Amino acid sequence: MLRTHTCGQLNIDNLGETVSLTGWVQKSRDLGGTTFIDIRDRYGLTQLVFNEETDSAVREQGRNLGREFVIQVTGKVLERFNKNPKMETGDIEIAVESLEILNAAKIPPFLIEDETDGGEELRAKYRYLDLRRNPIRNNLVLRHKMAQEVRRYLSDLDFIEVETPVLIKSTPEGARDFVVPSRMNPGEFYALPQSPQTFKQLLMVSGFDRYFQIVKCFRDEDLRADRQPEFTQIDCEMSFITQEDILNIFEGLTRHLFSKVKSIELGDFPRMHYADAMRLYGSDKPDRRFGMEFVELNDIVKAKGFGVFDNAELVVSINAKGAAAYTRKQLDELTEWLKRPQIGATGLIYMRHNEDGSLKSSVDKFYNEEELAKWSAALDTQRGDLVLVLAGDTHKVRKQMNELRLEMGSRLGLRDKDKFAPLWVIDFPLLEWDDESQRHHAMHHPFTSPKPEDIAMLDTHPGDVRANAYDLVINGTEIGGGSIRIHDRELQALMFKHLGFSKEEAQKQFGFLMDAFEYGAPPHGGIAFGFDRLCSIFAGLDSIRDVIAFPKNNSGRDVMIDSPSTIADAQMNELKIKTTV
Amino acid sequence: MLRTHTCGQLNIDNLGETVSLTGWVQKSRDLGGTTFIDIRDRYGLTQLVFNEETDSAVREQGRNLGREFVIQVTGKVLERFNKNPKMETGDIEIAVESLEILNAAKIPPFLIEDETDGGEELRAKYRYLDLRRNPIRNNLVLRHKMAQEVRRYLSDLDFIEVETPVLIKSTPEGARDFVVPSRMNPGEFYALPQSPQTFKQLLMVSGFDRYFQIVKCFRDEDLRADRQPEFTQIDCEMSFITQEDILNIFEGLTRHLFSKVKSIELGDFPRMHYADAMRLYGSDKPDRRFGMEFVELNDIVKAKGFGVFDNAELVVSINAKGAAAYTRKQLDELTEWLKRPQIGATGLIYMRHNEDGSLKSSVDKFYNEEELAKWSAALDTQRGDLVLVLAGDTHKVRKQMNELRLEMGSRLGLRDKDKFAPLWVIDFPLLEWDDESQRHHAMHHPFTSPKPEDIAMLDTHPGDVRANAYDLVINGTEIGGGSIRIHDRELQALMFKHLGFSKEEAQKQFGFLMDAFEYGAPPHGGIAFGFDRLCSIFAGLDSIRDVIAFPKNNSGRDVMIDSPSTIADAQMNELKIKTTV
Repeated sequence: MLRTHTCGQLNIDNLGETVSLTGWVQKSRDLGGTTFIDIRDRYGLTQLVFNEETDSAVREQGRNLGREFVIQVTGKVLERFNKNPKMETGDIEIAVESLEILNAAKIPPFLIEDETDGGEELRAKYRYLDLRRNPIRNNLVLRHKMAQEVRRYLSDLDFIEVETPVLIKSTPEGARDFVVPSRMNPGEFYALPQSPQTFKQLLMVSGFDRYFQIVKCFRDEDLRADRQPEFTQIDCEMSFITQEDILNIFEGLTRHLFSKVKSIELGDFPRMHYADAMRLYGSDKPDRRFGMEFVELNDIVKAKGFGVFDNAELVVSINAKGAAAYTRKQLDELTEWLKRPQIGATGLIYMRHNEDGSLKSSVDKFYNEEELAKWSAALDTQRGDLVLVLAGDTHKVRKQMNELRLEMGSRLGLRDKDKFAPLWVIDFPLLEWDDESQRHHAMHHPFTSPKPEDIAMLDTHPGDVRANAYDLVINGTEIGGGSIRIHDRELQALMFKHLGFSKEEAQKQFGFLMDAFEYGAPPHGGIAFGFDRLCSIFAGLDSIRDVIAFPKNNSGRDVMIDSPSTIADAQMNELKIKTTV
Repeated sequence: MLRTHTCGQLNIDNLGETVSLTGWVQKSRDLGGTTFIDIRDRYGLTQLVFNEETDSAVREQGRNLGREFVIQVTGKVLERFNKNPKMETGDIEIAVESLEILNAAKIPPFLIEDETDGGEELRAKYRYLDLRRNPIRNNLVLRHKMAQEVRRYLSDLDFIEVETPVLIKSTPEGARDFVVPSRMNPGEFYALPQSPQTFKQLLMVSGFDRYFQIVKCFRDEDLRADRQPEFTQIDCEMSFITQEDILNIFEGLTRHLFSKVKSIELGDFPRMHYADAMRLYGSDKPDRRFGMEFVELNDIVKAKGFGVFDNAELVVSINAKGAAAYTRKQLDELTEWLKRPQIGATGLIYMRHNEDGSLKSSVDKFYNEEELAKWSAALDTQRGDLVLVLAGDTHKVRKQMNELRLEMGSRLGLRDKDKFAPLWVIDFPLLEWDDESQRHHAMHHPFTSPKPEDIAMLDTHPGDVRANAYDLVINGTEIGGGSIRIHDRELQALMFKHLGFSKEEAQKQFGFLMDAFEYGAPPHGGIAFGFDRLCSIFAGLDSIRDVIAFPKNNSGRDVMIDSPSTIADAQMNELKIKTTV
């Protein structure tokens, strides 16, 4: 190696040793003829010193180093006069005896420091420089540790990591596939997997018993802050298990990660039925770092002459504790915020529980203090609380109230990034109605097993059929989900029928899986965690971008390498395709 | 869980316990009214017994089970009368008290046993059944263990696993890329990576210092037994190192794997210059499980009137020890074998060192016994040895002799699958001449650094420039290769020039990398191991197919899922492409 130690390694025990270090010039300062340089590598920073005792040519070299120059120095470890207790190596410095510039550096387009002056575009273009910054690099080190711990935990439980193919077959179900034209099979295409779902199920049919994989998956969807065209899953499947076994093992994995990586001991994860999550939080991924559960007011507020409530399917409220001091202006702003098309609420009704004990609502015309006392009782308000009420169609108003609850949680400082509130949501519906295509879609995917006691309802009340499906939610983010799978050919065929597949389509797309079920398929189920999201939660980030080394932007572009790009006509000819742009 | 134990777990310590097992019916036999069934899972086999003491309905159930039925049984652990010391569970059996058929099974299309009757096509179509067979499943368990050990070893040495993107940019250098049309960027394409080469170099520029990844790579090449369109690499890169550091660390990794996974302790790996490998073995990946090195005879055999030798650039020979008894017919067959177009030798000359001490060659007309004694001395023959000689152009005749040496090694039983002979081949040429395109190609890739002392020859004798490049070879198979990289913009630009890139092309394709070199790129280098090949060597297999769960056939097809396949016109319209088949 070109070094004897890293820049994070030397301390008082090394005094007097002659060492060699390599790294980047972090900063340089001249103090009364002495040059101090901080040299940086992945492991830390070490102070170099050039003074009267330094060879004059070396001293001159040191003086002329620019930021981000790559250097190799040899020198003696000395005790520092001004120790820096914040630095691992803060007790020592290196009296440089020789210096070699391994590579010069142009002035970087933005500051390589924890707080940088570079805009998002610039940092994306020079991602390799942004990755030099501690906060970003630390995220990737965290990610590495998490992946290692996931593998250790699952391997110790007899899970086998099996690589499933990346070049697979396009299926019409689910999100859009990325496709890959096949040169050897002209006119035909591979697809990149949205998940290894069918392969992991086949591995169960093969008797692998416990499978996992940390694996890249692909979705050609329009992108948002927390979506990337390629993302990584912790993908798992087990045989001869019940839902309870899967919840226990993957709760164990999650606790293991929090314990090993963040030294946080989480207790047992609470569980909530999907229906309760929707009723209490208007969401299948409630943020449980704070309460502020929904309270339904239909029984109390109807038939008092207020048309908005009388005509509403659901009147629902939350208690924003301590927010009674919100001014009229603030409440008007909140109302406007709710009216934005993304949310689409038509109006906000509120009641203040004032500090003097009085109750005052925005609909006093219809509800006197006696009526409001019932609101107060239902929401258990105290002096200083603010009740916020929305009314409308159940489905819509719950979604709106979910947004409002999260917003109030943020405003009231209840969504602490260092607090972690995990939750299992269970008993999801099997199907959800899609207005656009006028048919049911699988809520998880077509391989999810209905609860045996609900199968009879598939024909009569398909929307009421519950699935053996479950999601893990942390802080309002869906970390992962899974289900017990169908392992019976007939039931799988019935599911495809209910999803609008013809027999022929089902056979063409998934015949191999249904055939496999006839050769001795064990009961099985599994789960997949979004690894990027899990890492971003551990790192305290809102977006998954900065737990990914080379992410793409919202147009699916890698601006650093300038991809995607056009390809040569010869290449398209070989692939027997052409573009129609 | 539906079981209390696995099928490989119970032994004499469990006598009297009531247990539940789940698994597949491996085989069933009736002996005088008693039914014995072997139940199988990933962990082993356990014998179930149904006899007079079994409930009659359960006994009837047991009698009617077919092969590969999936069952759950509960019963008591008894000591066996006829113990089977070859089975982990051979001391016990289960007296079945209840039995549930979890899934029936059709008769499988081939035997699910270590030796099967299924042909390759059939087993590929029903890969999920083939994967039930121990030899195949064991390969994948081996692969899992190896991947775990690779990660452990490298992580302990401060390597960080970083995921690099799968959707990258197409480049004209190297093999054909698979491409992916971008819906969001119509007319443009991503490419799937042939390796994460440029990304890992950028990670070095970013200061990651030590990177690794076990990663899928893709090449759209015509396939052979040991090639797959998608394959897996152990990919590594390090900064501030010399070639020596990389060889030591990855020799250590290889030794670690042999020790942990196969309990084989390998000593220090020998190293050989590329030029010596070509001279002694006619190959840059010599199989060193046996000697039989080439001996060049030019000095001895020329100018004796034998035109074939006189006109040849090189006369080269091997000593096939103990093969003097080869008959004329066998030697004629060998000559024919050498004449096949894949090898293309024009003739084979031989000399027997007979048991009576006499020397007898196929060219006695030109070489008397005194002359042949010189051959014998050069090749150190003993009684019973056979000398095989080829003559022709150096490059061609070495390739031919390499084939002949390997063939004779196989015939003489010198290529034992349980013996492992690792070798580092070093000092590869930087460039190789390509007749077809009439220009030099990079022997490894365009980022490989020339040896500093050879850079001056780039303009005058480009073919003689040696690279800081190295390959690890085991048993004649290239396991991996790597190099010290260029980290200087000017040198990289010079390389592209010598590879026939215009300045504009180089900037368009690799501008991001050359730009990165200007912002403080450290000296760095790395290596990549073919993980599939490494696993196949560990498993004693000739092909990589059976260390891959779901491989593709020679036409790049997955016959199980029937992929690739056509896609809907609507999908092509969205992607703005059409096929021209």
